[in-house]
Amino acid sequence: VSLSSKQLKSLTQLIPDGEVQSAPHQLVAYSYDNSRLQAMPDTVVIPHNREEIIQLVKWCGVNKIPLISRGHGTGTTGATVPVNGGVVLSMEKMNRILEISPQNRFMVVEPGVTNQQVQDAAAEHGFFWPPDPTSAAVCTIGGNLACNASGPRGVKYGSPRENVLGLEAVNGRGEPFKTGCYTTKGVVGYDLTRLLIGSEGTLAVITQATLKLQPLPQTRQTLRVLYNSIQSAAKAVSRIMAQPVIPYSLEFMDDKAIQMISDYSQLNLPDTARALLLIEVDGTYSTIADSVEAIIDSAQTEGCIDVFRANSTEEIEQLWKTRKSLSPALRKVAPKKINEDIVVPVSEIPLFLQKVAEIEVQHGVTIVNFGHAGNGNLHVNLLVDPDDSTQMKAAHLALAAIFKLTLELRGTLSGEHGIGRVKREYVSQEIDAVAMRMMHDIKHVLDPYHILNPGKSLPDDTTG
Amino acid sequence: VSLSSKQLKSLTQLIPDGEVQSAPHQLVAYSYDNSRLQAMPDTVVIPHNREEIIQLVKWCGVNKIPLISRGHGTGTTGATVPVNGGVVLSMEKMNRILEISPQNRFMVVEPGVTNQQVQDAAAEHGFFWPPDPTSAAVCTIGGNLACNASGPRGVKYGSPRENVLGLEAVNGRGEPFKTGCYTTKGVVGYDLTRLLIGSEGTLAVITQATLKLQPLPQTRQTLRVLYNSIQSAAKAVSRIMAQPVIPYSLEFMDDKAIQMISDYSQLNLPDTARALLLIEVDGTYSTIADSVEAIIDSAQTEGCIDVFRANSTEEIEQLWKTRKSLSPALRKVAPKKINEDIVVPVSEIPLFLQKVAEIEVQHGVTIVNFGHAGNGNLHVNLLVDPDDSTQMKAAHLALAAIFKLTLELRGTLSGEHGIGRVKREYVSQEIDAVAMRMMHDIKHVLDPYHILNPGKSLPDDTTG
Repeated sequence: VSLSSKQLKSLTQLIPDGEVQSAPHQLVAYSYDNSRLQAMPDTVVIPHNREEIIQLVKWCGVNKIPLISRGHGTGTTGATVPVNGGVVLSMEKMNRILEISPQNRFMVVEPGVTNQQVQDAAAEHGFFWPPDPTSAAVCTIGGNLACNASGPRGVKYGSPRENVLGLEAVNGRGEPFKTGCYTTKGVVGYDLTRLLIGSEGTLAVITQATLKLQPLPQTRQTLRVLYNSIQSAAKAVSRIMAQPVIPYSLEFMDDKAIQMISDYSQLNLPDTARALLLIEVDGTYSTIADSVEAIIDSAQTEGCIDVFRANSTEEIEQLWKTRKSLSPALRKVAPKKINEDIVVPVSEIPLFLQKVAEIEVQHGVTIVNFGHAGNGNLHVNLLVDPDDSTQMKAAHLALAAIFKLTLELRGTLSGEHGIGRVKREYVSQEIDAVAMRMMHDIKHVLDPYHILNPGKSLPDDTTG
Repeated sequence: VSLSSKQLKSLTQLIPDGEVQSAPHQLVAYSYDNSRLQAMPDTVVIPHNREEIIQLVKWCGVNKIPLISRGHGTGTTGATVPVNGGVVLSMEKMNRILEISPQNRFMVVEPGVTNQQVQDAAAEHGFFWPPDPTSAAVCTIGGNLACNASGPRGVKYGSPRENVLGLEAVNGRGEPFKTGCYTTKGVVGYDLTRLLIGSEGTLAVITQATLKLQPLPQTRQTLRVLYNSIQSAAKAVSRIMAQPVIPYSLEFMDDKAIQMISDYSQLNLPDTARALLLIEVDGTYSTIADSVEAIIDSAQTEGCIDVFRANSTEEIEQLWKTRKSLSPALRKVAPKKINEDIVVPVSEIPLFLQKVAEIEVQHGVTIVNFGHAGNGNLHVNLLVDPDDSTQMKAAHLALAAIFKLTLELRGTLSGEHGIGRVKREYVSQEIDAVAMRMMHDIKHVLDPYHILNPGKSLPDDTTG
């Protein structure tokens, strides 16, 4: 695709209040996400309201121009990279919080508001919105919904699909519509809300969302538990998830992840530590002690060598800094690492990690594992140098083996990063041909001109 | 539709192990649900496995015969009544629990298993499945999923859409497919799981479900709180839902509901009681007291005249018997009552009930209100005699006014009963034309021959 100057002019006339940007230095800012894929859009449009979006989608339909909606570009799969050119729709000025209803526990927002802004506004009324990706400070709600992103709290409070009541959106014909409702129950018509959530902008442009709020826990306690083997920690995760107290978060790091952050901060962990669990427990002042005891009981499997309770805000921050420094640290070591986020049933984590260690040896690729263990959601990082073709070949064989293993253990290929551009070729290993054809047909229903984020999420429809 | 003897014979040959029943006394048993609508099927098929269902759906497609899946017929909207004749598929022999995984908190079941059987099997491992319709003792999981039925626990633990991980189903072409996964996170492909849940058998036949389990609370306390006015109770509901402790259930009854059950049991309530809240609070032994105090604090609005705490299993059972005797008592008084289950945002309950009282006076129809107040889900019962045409005319005017009011207050027309046959004409008041057309198109994708439960859930597609 390449827009003619006539087309550009008609676009600018169409959206007088919107900003249409086409200078190269402007385009480059919208050409990439956090996957390190890059492709230049033909133009960038920054609308202020739904009406402008309706006009823009209609224009793209008539002109058969790809339309890629994006927030702040923190995704890791290339889902917002305009690989076929076209128009990037940036939600940066659709960033208002429209309503907060504490009594009804909901908040109505535009998609360009950041996760942090939502949390801050909710906290003023004693609430929070559960999804909290590591990028919460900058990522937008629209992006969170597009890839159903959760983060650590997902283990107890669920993903966006469990925490959104309704949406307003514009389909691929440029028609606005509503989904869901403002209440926690409702069964009128088919569930289009969850259909749009996780569809990576391929079915409609979300223009408004009603988020379901949860009351802030009165208090939390943060624990760091160390193990002398990965298997011990994995078994502890299984035990924790089999007893009644569900932790607020339950994060895992393997030996190489520990090593990595030790190099970049002063952790002073014992040399025997080969795995780490970072556990948060929430509750009321009267319940927290019992809940923490229940968790520690389950966490103390054979091989547990240390339990540390954070006793101050500083100590809590220090623990989380450890966890959050992991991705940047990894990126420093291997700037073009392959970062997957598979999920396996919690009871299969020990076997999964054992087999991954075998795959690592077999293919000679360094693999670092950490992630949201309470959901079975592991971030599997292959440290590779993309300029080394032998290494890349080995990495792709290792990756194929990891995905095969994941599916054999009844897992799924992505827990929250999504498919985007980078994992499309693997999707048909998980989704059967019948479901895939119906998904393509549903895509055609909502986006008949195939302009919404083409080439993302689902593999190409090859059935004709 | 009427099956020829040749067709019947081919059907019997097709499904040798299945039971094909066509004697009138057999058909009549599958001709109604709990809506009091009735229509005779042409035949009833009772399959034993998915393969038989695949063959049956294909046969119906070729012969253009409607196929209506059903469980035990406890629905209240006529969703399983074969209004256009055809084949009723009874799930009564697809009733196995296939797997329970306590470590991974899931259970895999066939659709014909009852809710109670699921609860019993889960309880052996210390878990429960949250949805608990009043008919839990007999209703099937397939039916619960078909109409996204919740019950009292929905206020804290959500509906089937929040408590199912994945499905196996057969679409209207007779093709089997899988949706979702076995883990609590997963974002590969579009969310077909939630699309099928609540679609009342119009999109596919669900043949297997992976249910997400929750740990059983260690203990519960049950409270009955009385108010001297409906408004006081309604305001208490708002206050309870605005503070952090979410009750396990929060049921409401108005003055006429109290009167009704007083006539059928020994309640001995004070004469001044005009509204009642039945509240359950769950927690651990160490937390329950504090949680109950928090709830009682919020419940004690102006007009609260009594707080009674059940102190024994017998007292708890007595309180719940009160709640559960309500529907049968109502049915005794008005066998053909119109029973709606609208939802409004919790903060709007006081205004909703005030306006309903006005509608009651204006149209001269007795209206009894009770329901799952914590979700804003109210069962609005119009006590009418269908043989009295003047009364029925007034009732339908009153109903139209109630639905209009519900939507004005940003509510929804059904919380858990669904649409079925009886509420179809009102659906387009809630769902906009664009969303409706996409729903019809999605129906066409999954069921291109339009054989799956025709004439239910969505209004007829009149757009051609």
